[in-house]
Amino acid sequence: MSSQTLLQKLAEDYFDLNGPGLLILENEPTALEFSRLVHISRPVLIRGVYIPSVRFWSDEYLAAAMGDAKITVAVTPDGRADSVVTGPNGKHYFAEPATEQTTMGELLARLSKEEEDSDVCYLQSQNGNVYSSAFFEGDSDASEFLALRADIPREIEWCSEALGKAPDAVNLWIGSRRSVTSIHSDPYENIYHVVRGAKHFTLLPPTEGGCLQERLYQHAVWMRPNPGGPLTLQPSEDAPPIRWASVVEPDVPGNLPDSAHPIEITVNAGETLYLPPGWWHHVRQNDSTIALNYWYDMEMRGMMWPVLNMLRGEIDS
Amino acid sequence: MSSQTLLQKLAEDYFDLNGPGLLILENEPTALEFSRLVHISRPVLIRGVYIPSVRFWSDEYLAAAMGDAKITVAVTPDGRADSVVTGPNGKHYFAEPATEQTTMGELLARLSKEEEDSDVCYLQSQNGNVYSSAFFEGDSDASEFLALRADIPREIEWCSEALGKAPDAVNLWIGSRRSVTSIHSDPYENIYHVVRGAKHFTLLPPTEGGCLQERLYQHAVWMRPNPGGPLTLQPSEDAPPIRWASVVEPDVPGNLPDSAHPIEITVNAGETLYLPPGWWHHVRQNDSTIALNYWYDMEMRGMMWPVLNMLRGEIDS
Repeated sequence: MSSQTLLQKLAEDYFDLNGPGLLILENEPTALEFSRLVHISRPVLIRGVYIPSVRFWSDEYLAAAMGDAKITVAVTPDGRADSVVTGPNGKHYFAEPATEQTTMGELLARLSKEEEDSDVCYLQSQNGNVYSSAFFEGDSDASEFLALRADIPREIEWCSEALGKAPDAVNLWIGSRRSVTSIHSDPYENIYHVVRGAKHFTLLPPTEGGCLQERLYQHAVWMRPNPGGPLTLQPSEDAPPIRWASVVEPDVPGNLPDSAHPIEITVNAGETLYLPPGWWHHVRQNDSTIALNYWYDMEMRGMMWPVLNMLRGEIDS
Repeated sequence: MSSQTLLQKLAEDYFDLNGPGLLILENEPTALEFSRLVHISRPVLIRGVYIPSVRFWSDEYLAAAMGDAKITVAVTPDGRADSVVTGPNGKHYFAEPATEQTTMGELLARLSKEEEDSDVCYLQSQNGNVYSSAFFEGDSDASEFLALRADIPREIEWCSEALGKAPDAVNLWIGSRRSVTSIHSDPYENIYHVVRGAKHFTLLPPTEGGCLQERLYQHAVWMRPNPGGPLTLQPSEDAPPIRWASVVEPDVPGNLPDSAHPIEITVNAGETLYLPPGWWHHVRQNDSTIALNYWYDMEMRGMMWPVLNMLRGEIDS
C-alpha cells in the first residue's frame, strides 16, 4: 500500500468516527472539562466566555485610549495577506503584506470608509501584539497596545489551568469584510474570542490537509515604492520558498475535493472558538470585526506532534 | 513512499520526541494532572497510590474471607495463557488456558507449592472479576469475589474524575513467577496496582507494534480430557483465527529488532502503573504476586483511535 492510500484511509476513519459536527458549549468549561476537550482535539464553539472589559469597546473609546500610539497594520491591495497571489508575470507567489504605522483612530476611520478599490488595512500583527512570549517570561516587551492591557485579560484562566501554562502570545485583531486569512494550520492551542462583528471559519481536520495541495511558492512582499502610490508585489530573491496551500478559497463550493469535510462556523461577538493544533482554518469576517486570540504552546510529548508531521508529509515543489 | 516507510518514520519521530523514559510520579495525581497525562498517553509509574484495605492482605485473610466460594482460574502446562504456542504437530496456535474451579484457599496453597513440572495456575479471569461493566451499569453481576469487594475500591477517584466516567472493569490477579502474559495491547486506559510481589512489564509504544510481527493463528484451548491427567492442546476447528504477536519473549535481548525501544519497568507492591491505550505490554511477575487493575473505556472521539487502527494495519496471515 502507498503512504497516500494509508493517509486517505486514516482521514476516512477519522471522519467516520468523529462526523461532521462541531462541539458547542453553552458555558465556559472548567479546567478539567477543557483538558478533556484538548485530548479530543476537535474545535469547540464556546458561548459563555464573558470579558466585560472589552464587550462594549467603541471606536471612540479605543481611539481615545490609544491616543497617538503608533500601531503596525498590514496593507494589501485586496485583503489577502500571507496568501498565494498571482504576480503581474502570471507567476504565483506567497505574498506578505506591506506594513504601515498608523494610530488606532486612523485605522478605525480608514476601516469605516474602505471602498472596493482602496487598499485594505488589517491589524493582524499576531506577534503577541498585546502580550508576547517575552512578557510571559517576565521580560519587558514592546507591545503597541499597552494602553489596552487593562481591558484585555492576560490569559484564559480555565485554559491556562488545563494546560498548566501561561499563553505564548495574546493578539488583538481588527479588520473589515475585505480582509481574508488564507487557509493554514498552527502548532498551537488557540482560543479565539470575537469581541465585535463576526468571524467565519472554514475548518478542515489535520487528516484532510492533503486536500489543500500544499506547494512551495517564491516569497514576495507588497511594497509601496512611492508614498501615495500603488502597492506593488516585490519578489524576495534570497528568501527560502514558502510552503503553502494552493487552494485559496476553500469556502467556495467546488474548490475542495469530495474527500474533504469542511466545517463552516460563524463565531459571533461574545462567542469563542477553541481551535486545536493542526486544524486548518480559513477566516473571513464582517466589517468592523474585533477579536482577541490566545495561543498556548501545544503539548509536545506524546503522539500528536509526530502524527501532525506525518499528515503534512513531504510535498512536491 | 510505501506505507511501511511512512510508519517507520512515524515511529522514529515518536521516539526522537519522547525518548526512552517513563514518567514517574511520587504522589497520586489530581484529576486535572492525570487528564494531562492521558493526553500525553505515555506510561506513568505512580508511587503514592495507597489502598490500605488491600495492603496487608495475607493468604490466611484471603482464604478465610472467601471461604468456600468457587473461583475460576486459568491453567496451562507452562504459564503461557493467551499466547502463541507450538502444538505437538509443530504448528503454532493461539492457545487459551484451561479453566478450573477452585477456592481461594486451594489456589493460594497450590501457588505456594508449585514445582517446575506442575501445571501453572493463574487467577486472571479479567472479565471484571471484581466489578464488571454490568455492575457499573447498575445491573447485578456474578462476581466470584463479592467477599473481597469491601476491601477493593470500585474506582480510582482521580482517574474516574479525569475521564468523566466509571471504570468498565476491575480485576483481581493472583499468580506466580511461572505465569507470563504474552505481549498484546488493549483499547483501554489501564490503572494497574500491585498489591503484593512485583510485576515486570516490557512496554512498546503503539508506534512500534510492527516489531512484533502480528500474524493470524489458529485458535486452540488447553483441555484436560481425563481428570488428573495431563493438559492437551485442542485446536478449535470452527473458531476464527486470532491475530497475535509472533514475538513470544520480547523481554529477551535480541528478540526484538533494533528499531524497537522497549521500556522495562518493575512495578513493586504499593506502586501503580498507568498504561495508556494501545501500548504493548508483556508481563512477568514474582511468586505470590497480587494485583488489581482498573480498565476505563478510552476516549473514542478525536485522533487516537484512528491512529491506533492505522498503526496496527493489515497483516499477512
